[in-house]
Amino acid sequence: MSTTPIRVIPLGGLGEIGMNLMVYEHGDHAVLVDCGMMFPDSATLGVDVIVPDMTYIFDNAQKFRAVFLTHGHEDHIGALPFLIERLPLPIYGMPLTLGFVKDKFEEFNLEGDLRPLQPRDVVEAGPFVVEALRVTHSIVDALGYAITTPLGTVIHTGDFKIDHTPVDAKPTDLQRFAHHGELGVLLLVSDSTNALVPGHGPSERVVGGGLDRIFSQAKGRILVTTFASHIHRVQQVIDVARKFRRKVLLVGRSLVDNIETAERLGYVRFPREVRAGSADLDPRELVIMTTGTQGEPSSALSRMAIGEHKQVQIEKGDVVVISARTIPGNERHVAHLIDNLYRRGADVVSHEQPDVHVSGHACEEELKLMLNVTKPKFFIPMHGTLRHLIHHARIAKGVGVRHGVVITNGQVATIDGDEIDVLEERVPNGKVFIDAEAEEVPEVVVRDRQHLAEDGFVIVVVAIDSTGAMVRDPELITRGLVHVDASQELLDDVRAQLVGMLTEMPREELRDLELVQERMRALLKRYFRKNMGRRPLILPVVWEM
Amino acid sequence: MSTTPIRVIPLGGLGEIGMNLMVYEHGDHAVLVDCGMMFPDSATLGVDVIVPDMTYIFDNAQKFRAVFLTHGHEDHIGALPFLIERLPLPIYGMPLTLGFVKDKFEEFNLEGDLRPLQPRDVVEAGPFVVEALRVTHSIVDALGYAITTPLGTVIHTGDFKIDHTPVDAKPTDLQRFAHHGELGVLLLVSDSTNALVPGHGPSERVVGGGLDRIFSQAKGRILVTTFASHIHRVQQVIDVARKFRRKVLLVGRSLVDNIETAERLGYVRFPREVRAGSADLDPRELVIMTTGTQGEPSSALSRMAIGEHKQVQIEKGDVVVISARTIPGNERHVAHLIDNLYRRGADVVSHEQPDVHVSGHACEEELKLMLNVTKPKFFIPMHGTLRHLIHHARIAKGVGVRHGVVITNGQVATIDGDEIDVLEERVPNGKVFIDAEAEEVPEVVVRDRQHLAEDGFVIVVVAIDSTGAMVRDPELITRGLVHVDASQELLDDVRAQLVGMLTEMPREELRDLELVQERMRALLKRYFRKNMGRRPLILPVVWEM
Repeated sequence: MSTTPIRVIPLGGLGEIGMNLMVYEHGDHAVLVDCGMMFPDSATLGVDVIVPDMTYIFDNAQKFRAVFLTHGHEDHIGALPFLIERLPLPIYGMPLTLGFVKDKFEEFNLEGDLRPLQPRDVVEAGPFVVEALRVTHSIVDALGYAITTPLGTVIHTGDFKIDHTPVDAKPTDLQRFAHHGELGVLLLVSDSTNALVPGHGPSERVVGGGLDRIFSQAKGRILVTTFASHIHRVQQVIDVARKFRRKVLLVGRSLVDNIETAERLGYVRFPREVRAGSADLDPRELVIMTTGTQGEPSSALSRMAIGEHKQVQIEKGDVVVISARTIPGNERHVAHLIDNLYRRGADVVSHEQPDVHVSGHACEEELKLMLNVTKPKFFIPMHGTLRHLIHHARIAKGVGVRHGVVITNGQVATIDGDEIDVLEERVPNGKVFIDAEAEEVPEVVVRDRQHLAEDGFVIVVVAIDSTGAMVRDPELITRGLVHVDASQELLDDVRAQLVGMLTEMPREELRDLELVQERMRALLKRYFRKNMGRRPLILPVVWEM
Repeated sequence: MSTTPIRVIPLGGLGEIGMNLMVYEHGDHAVLVDCGMMFPDSATLGVDVIVPDMTYIFDNAQKFRAVFLTHGHEDHIGALPFLIERLPLPIYGMPLTLGFVKDKFEEFNLEGDLRPLQPRDVVEAGPFVVEALRVTHSIVDALGYAITTPLGTVIHTGDFKIDHTPVDAKPTDLQRFAHHGELGVLLLVSDSTNALVPGHGPSERVVGGGLDRIFSQAKGRILVTTFASHIHRVQQVIDVARKFRRKVLLVGRSLVDNIETAERLGYVRFPREVRAGSADLDPRELVIMTTGTQGEPSSALSRMAIGEHKQVQIEKGDVVVISARTIPGNERHVAHLIDNLYRRGADVVSHEQPDVHVSGHACEEELKLMLNVTKPKFFIPMHGTLRHLIHHARIAKGVGVRHGVVITNGQVATIDGDEIDVLEERVPNGKVFIDAEAEEVPEVVVRDRQHLAEDGFVIVVVAIDSTGAMVRDPELITRGLVHVDASQELLDDVRAQLVGMLTEMPREELRDLELVQERMRALLKRYFRKNMGRRPLILPVVWEM
């Protein structure tokens, strides 16, 4: 047996929801599982997406052999372009996952070394022997991995649930998980998203029943929105539409692209006679599928809801089915969307009603099943806030897995076969902000935006000649602090105080421009705190004329 | 019978959650029920609270006779200071409600004409005969009102639930609601907050059982956080603490103040032997009650969770009970708080676990009960987003109340006895933003802050002499757009382009300062959109030297 330890290093997704990225290392070799992004909350500050800090990977680039993808959700593949443009590793995954990655890479003008896998395929990457294990999740073609290392086998579940009746009749490969459990699993790394939810989650198939009920009652058009990548959900809508003799129109680029990719790869059956060519059909014969489950203001559904969509307008009698959960942080956006839909006379059925949405993640009893089937020596819960991870670790303890370790992003767990330890020091980790142009937004810029959002700014420009005399009155420029037109008195007062201070300063001090700046900053800071209780961003500029 | 119609004018709380304010008018007379505020969501933009636009009230000041308060929650009393400082009306309410109002007025240095009511008390205000009706809610001393007008009786439920076993054994006065129903109710205006929740909500008393279970298992300190005004919840904690021989320490100014007020008025039994003088007790003998259910960063609990609270630090083994629901928009704050608590080794029990919190609002079956007991001719659902209001209107239709009308803030419903109509035009309505200094933040300032938060700003200052020659290079000041130190090249390029443009402008054009400003603005706008895809706030300043 090797004495070099295995190192497990999460760079995203442990201690938070989203941007999943896990590193497994042995000596000079490492592989990466997933490379995802997350969306910012409503306080966007001009940030479009957030990806993990991958400094550690770039600093140790020579170690990395490959990326293994569990499935095609953005929180598992969304940061890949930012990795691959700097470190072109081979990327393994199931065909649909790689299909989505290919679409994404095309947007970024990137070529990827994409290597398709099927369940139970085995790949070697340095000293790692990696086997793909089918799991069920809220997307087609989801995988877990059995990563056999010189010290033993690591099972990385990916996002999973135990759906005994999945829509494609391809359940989680419990036999193979059990096989590894029988041979001996060194470490289980398992999805904690629903660790706080007791029981066993319902099958994706129940949504078909829910849709059936809604379709049987609807008297007008039906609109269904779900995540663009949720191929099975889309398939169920197509199937129910067909049963009720409705045609389906897809609206929204990501949905159209994803379904096209899925269809090309044989994952969707979308017969010609179920396709609508336009929205100009009898309302009782039409289903519109679209994007915008999170109330994103720029999404198709949000624009339909305010009459700003070119193709489709919401009309009285429409039934809108929001077949997705609301991601925490988006509640107000979604509530706003729903109200706009009602305002135009639609009725809305959302995930609060039964059978309109089911989770893709394993609940407590499913997690216990995974723990019991794999019988790992060591356990690391992944995917979730600290609370989720701790609860999952407790669940593991409850089923007799004694060596559970809770780590979060940047921490390094080392396993030498007999023991699991966590290093004192973290590797670099954190969030990198990316704007709509795919450019990084430096943290200092985001902090400035936060500051500006709270209290606005005040800029003062003074011009001083070489004798130290003021050439003209100071210029005061401010926004986001006071109503400029209505606050002339206050601004005049500030200006007078500045002039007073500058007039009283000895000439020799006035020649020290930094000192003048500092004095002006201090005066303004004090003034606005005292008079308005505010702390605007203050920038004094001194011109030497 | 009078032929002057009744006018019902919501100025807040209809079409949104929070800042409830309802106007009832008859001819030259009007009364107001409640005058609440709401909190901004996480994108605060320097806004502390939001109150309704009360222009309509101030414009018609001579009409208004009195304010009737249903209960002491901030979304029902929080905007009162902004009303009363301009229009000192008599304020009616139960003693605890008025106690909270008094505390609030003291902060604002306001005197209020506070007139205490007891259930079934009757008050005349102009042509209105107003009777107080006890209801149960998540605060002591909650009322609905029966407002008898020359055209008939209006029942305004306030926030309510039908709790048959309230902690103070004072249930909703169904007899009196029924009495009015028997005499004939013209209009019911009823709470829609839980119109989407089927069934009948659980009694507040079940929380006692939940606390009992938690206390019986806890081996260390227990911290409980709830809304500071939730006197019954606090009482239940005191009672359970006593049973388990623990002492209770109150931490947080609003909680201490509220309980002091409630105790003085006889609403809380907090015996000396259950009071803790400090946190220095055996952990098994201590309960700490504190504020911060919504994860507000400045709250006591949030500060304890990051070790920044003077009195109390979270320690390993603490059990923290969050006995409140999360208000939509605060999910990320609360998740962050919970993670910080776990990070310090505490365990957290939140409202997702059963019996830790129950809602104070009537669910579907309770709403039906209210409709059936009062048997109104007309119905207006209040308190909720449009979705809630529409669902409540459907519930009303389902129990046979045919004339339900859904209106939102600023709309005017008129009732002439036989018919209910909604006027075409709205009265002024909307949100007024208030900062931490209780000053109004003008909407244009909030919009500027939003703009600054998205894309930052660029200011350019040029100095031109009387001949139209540039006196020195343009000064470029920017924040929140690019990393200033790392973007010197880009900024130099912008400056060069500005200089190029100004150099090429004919001298006579350069003397037109507004034209110069316009040209600079256009250049900068184009530059940043083309090169960065961004739209910063641009402010060109031209100095004539």
